[in-house]
Amino acid sequence: MNYQAVLEEIQQEVQPLFGTGKVANYIPALQRVDPNKFGIAIATPNGEIVSIGDANEPFSIQSISKVFTLTMVFAKHGESLWKRVGKEPSGTAFNSLVQLEYEKGIPRNPFINAGALVITDMLISDQECAYKSVLNFLRKTSGNASVDYNAEVAQSEKEQGFRNAALVNFLKSHNNIHNDIDNVLDVYFHHCAVSMSCIDLARTMLYFSNHGESPIANERILTVSQSKRLSAVMMTCGFYDEAGEFAFRVGLPGKSGVGGGIAAVIPGKLAIAVWSPELNDKGNSVVGMKALELFTTKTGISVF
Amino acid sequence: MNYQAVLEEIQQEVQPLFGTGKVANYIPALQRVDPNKFGIAIATPNGEIVSIGDANEPFSIQSISKVFTLTMVFAKHGESLWKRVGKEPSGTAFNSLVQLEYEKGIPRNPFINAGALVITDMLISDQECAYKSVLNFLRKTSGNASVDYNAEVAQSEKEQGFRNAALVNFLKSHNNIHNDIDNVLDVYFHHCAVSMSCIDLARTMLYFSNHGESPIANERILTVSQSKRLSAVMMTCGFYDEAGEFAFRVGLPGKSGVGGGIAAVIPGKLAIAVWSPELNDKGNSVVGMKALELFTTKTGISVF
Amino acid sequence: MNYQAVLEEIQQEVQPLFGTGKVANYIPALQRVDPNKFGIAIATPNGEIVSIGDANEPFSIQSISKVFTLTMVFAKHGESLWKRVGKEPSGTAFNSLVQLEYEKGIPRNPFINAGALVITDMLISDQECAYKSVLNFLRKTSGNASVDYNAEVAQSEKEQGFRNAALVNFLKSHNNIHNDIDNVLDVYFHHCAVSMSCIDLARTMLYFSNHGESPIANERILTVSQSKRLSAVMMTCGFYDEAGEFAFRVGLPGKSGVGGGIAAVIPGKLAIAVWSPELNDKGNSVVGMKALELFTTKTGISVF
Amino acid sequence: MNYQAVLEEIQQEVQPLFGTGKVANYIPALQRVDPNKFGIAIATPNGEIVSIGDANEPFSIQSISKVFTLTMVFAKHGESLWKRVGKEPSGTAFNSLVQLEYEKGIPRNPFINAGALVITDMLISDQECAYKSVLNFLRKTSGNASVDYNAEVAQSEKEQGFRNAALVNFLKSHNNIHNDIDNVLDVYFHHCAVSMSCIDLARTMLYFSNHGESPIANERILTVSQSKRLSAVMMTCGFYDEAGEFAFRVGLPGKSGVGGGIAAVIPGKLAIAVWSPELNDKGNSVVGMKALELFTTKTGISVF
Repeated sequence: MNYQAVLEEIQQEVQPLFGTGKVANYIPALQRVDPNKFGIAIATPNGEIVSIGDANEPFSIQSISKVFTLTMVFAKHGESLWKRVGKEPSGTAFNSLVQLEYEKGIPRNPFINAGALVITDMLISDQECAYKSVLNFLRKTSGNASVDYNAEVAQSEKEQGFRNAALVNFLKSHNNIHNDIDNVLDVYFHHCAVSMSCIDLARTMLYFSNHGESPIANERILTVSQSKRLSAVMMTCGFYDEAGEFAFRVGLPGKSGVGGGIAAVIPGKLAIAVWSPELNDKGNSVVGMKALELFTTKTGISVF
Repeated sequence: MNYQAVLEEIQQEVQPLFGTGKVANYIPALQRVDPNKFGIAIATPNGEIVSIGDANEPFSIQSISKVFTLTMVFAKHGESLWKRVGKEPSGTAFNSLVQLEYEKGIPRNPFINAGALVITDMLISDQECAYKSVLNFLRKTSGNASVDYNAEVAQSEKEQGFRNAALVNFLKSHNNIHNDIDNVLDVYFHHCAVSMSCIDLARTMLYFSNHGESPIANERILTVSQSKRLSAVMMTCGFYDEAGEFAFRVGLPGKSGVGGGIAAVIPGKLAIAVWSPELNDKGNSVVGMKALELFTTKTGISVF
Repeated sequence: MNYQAVLEEIQQEVQPLFGTGKVANYIPALQRVDPNKFGIAIATPNGEIVSIGDANEPFSIQSISKVFTLTMVFAKHGESLWKRVGKEPSGTAFNSLVQLEYEKGIPRNPFINAGALVITDMLISDQECAYKSVLNFLRKTSGNASVDYNAEVAQSEKEQGFRNAALVNFLKSHNNIHNDIDNVLDVYFHHCAVSMSCIDLARTMLYFSNHGESPIANERILTVSQSKRLSAVMMTCGFYDEAGEFAFRVGLPGKSGVGGGIAAVIPGKLAIAVWSPELNDKGNSVVGMKALELFTTKTGISVF
Repeated sequence: MNYQAVLEEIQQEVQPLFGTGKVANYIPALQRVDPNKFGIAIATPNGEIVSIGDANEPFSIQSISKVFTLTMVFAKHGESLWKRVGKEPSGTAFNSLVQLEYEKGIPRNPFINAGALVITDMLISDQECAYKSVLNFLRKTSGNASVDYNAEVAQSEKEQGFRNAALVNFLKSHNNIHNDIDNVLDVYFHHCAVSMSCIDLARTMLYFSNHGESPIANERILTVSQSKRLSAVMMTCGFYDEAGEFAFRVGLPGKSGVGGGIAAVIPGKLAIAVWSPELNDKGNSVVGMKALELFTTKTGISVF
């Protein structure tokens, strides 16, 4: 299939959507991103890369990073991980305290903020230096040694991070955080502040398209079964309270971030990342969702 | 692949789970079902049927029927359907009033009871005789002209149906029921009271495995896109508050019922139905979920 | 104290508030009430009546009737009543299903609709003819033999009563309704459709101001302790989700209705009823609340 | 009335209740309190003190302190206070995050923890040294210059205070905390850690029994209207999710703490404080509530 032609068509067709969403504005570093940025990259297990637009420009991956910390912790702990975090869709916004209270401090899934904070806590317990381990993982799987944290974003997140501080304190009151609260928040804000390009992201996500093995790192990241299972978690929980909508329209496992990125995979076939900073009121990239919907429609590729 | 051998292995391996769940007991007709019943049937688009155990014995399909009424209404209304029902996972038990109240009478998805009642209401508006139209659909797509309602089950459901009566009255107070309340409940209780065997169900579900066209009826039921989209809804919403768990363990779109049945599909490949009456505390068949998990593990077939 | 002069001052001072609320419009019979109606009546245990404005004109007492059915049932059952209904403020709107679901079908208190429906159910179980018994009670305690149901209001309530039908079905699903659902709704809609004037209401409420004994009926209605205790329930639960506000501003036990009436008592001293149809967004009479606030401020009489 | 005789009767009658509750155990300093401690003190505006048992022994007043910080802030800000805190009963447990989330960071009332934290924040903004100002207030109104913080309790509260830290961070995320989070928590934990005896508390509470003027301090603390209004807030919100129960059984405005104390007032007549460390599952003193119920029953004094 001529993916390049497909991406060009998509780029044309999404034009009318620019201006219909809103760039994240809770921190300056995100707010000043050019709303017209747009890129898509496709990576295949055999090394092919197809891209369009700003696919080579790094942006703040934000919550997409939760896929990678989850991968690292799941690879180490296996199924015992699920004692501390659920795997059901939340049905509500990504930072809801309500659910957490009803469920006694066990976050509904690893992609809501509370769940991701628990995963970060586990990562800290597991690794000598959690900061470095995340960067190492991303550099290795993307093949790009310059992947790094954006210090300004991390700092801004921290200064505005009262809600995440509320969550982590609440989790600690339920004994579901084992490390120091400030340390957990610091690592969390840092991994959300990683900058990667669409191409970096698509390459990193390839282990989900390749039965758990990263063709870039030339290394098994997850078992075959684990790779399928985390794909399922992305499918049911990866888009805040729009998981159903994304599955309905796009039909791929994936994860979005408020930086406007979405990373998705077609098991056995390819990984795809898209970036467009304007968000809908659910916090997902307007153009990004449309671009992926067009991609699966035009190519006929979806998991269904 | 030798599906028969796989089913035989599965039958062996699930034996220890019998006795660990609980047959639905809210109405006598369900309560007296033999808990040791067990059947699986696989149907492929080219007409192959593989089965084991009690795959030929009819049981109460209960909520699995919601897939078929949804199909009928979606085929007629298309995307406008979603003005009256959402398509997000509920994250809570299948008959929650809470969500309905917060969401002003728009049920979260068509598989929670409130959503299915709205779909039934639309069906009544659409069809001259909703009762007959459901039976006709099921007879045509299963190729079994003897598929019918179980009158005792329908009557018992009605006598115990205060919670569904609460839901439909609440929906009506939000103007999301257009027909007479008793009529809606009557049709709803009847379509949930249909009896079908695993073989019937697997054959009926084939349109999801065949891009929207039923090879049994030799008729297009849904467009290609609609078939994918309803598969996505089954994947994210088909198992009450265990949708994430089912996607994680099994990785297939499907729908369960409190009669102990589960119907699932592998797009492009096959449809599979399993029946075992003992339920876990989420209302899903214990043995049924395990059997499907084993099936995808052993065959390596899942959507991920 | 010259109550007449106080009432005249109040009438002057509330004038600017007319036009700031909204007459209940969910049924025609309430909607067409003149929004400028205004009356206050004070009754004392020794037989004095002081009134102003439209204090002699009957209006729909609506939820104020819940005080009287509660009185009848409490007098008969005593403390065992509280097994079926709580006595805590709800903190939410008067017809919330949410709380009921979390609390397994035990309504939070007897003044939210769900609680009043349970009380009505108990009344039906207790009385040969619940309709007549309520009228008899009100005629006896008000001394007005012409107190009656407004048939049009009762009928309209019924036709619009899907939400109450939802509640009663939900309660029945939790076994907290023992009689036929339609019968419960019918009696409930009727007692809410009683018409009484401010003078009638003030005279009826006198048993709360007279240690449980009605000076009009010359009969003990409640024990001394029961009278205090129901006064406490009115204080904490009598104004939907504005109970705190009413206690704060007015400082009296009382009960409001969406017909625009409020009945309140000063234990040991007097009963007072006010009527003004315009409601605030919590469903309480705007002018009525202000009039009572002015009354306690001007007279220095409150329970605190 | 012979209050001494009444207290002696009460002491007899509550004996069977010892052992039926549970001493607060979330911090060591509370956990090791002798569960058999029991004291009552009555203070009247004219200077009379009647007491029994351990009425002279200081205990941790905990949430009772919220009445005094509220008084200080209300005296200064008047009605504008209610822009930042509501005054409706919460209907749920004292540290619920749920309500706070639905209500966008405006705590339901000043006695749930979130509300008290906002009051503490206002106190810090108002006073040069919030610590000292609280102590000064309590020393002045109790007439006991040795009233002080228990440093161990304050420290332990802080070490276990993840839930309160969650609340204050959440409030800050809604801009409803203006001072430094650690400072707010520190002052809050300190004022909850004040030790006072029943006699101290009864004397301090006298301003509510004396139209806002403290006969001990010989100083107006609140206006007449403010005193009534805060009494109303105590009545509707003073006992966590047992406010209705306390009003029903006791019929007095008051406030409880998890140290086992309850302070209550009879407007115009007296103040009363009771201490018994064993709590019911709502966090209120079992024996304390019973003692106050017996007091109002035996004396016939209640506000109703």
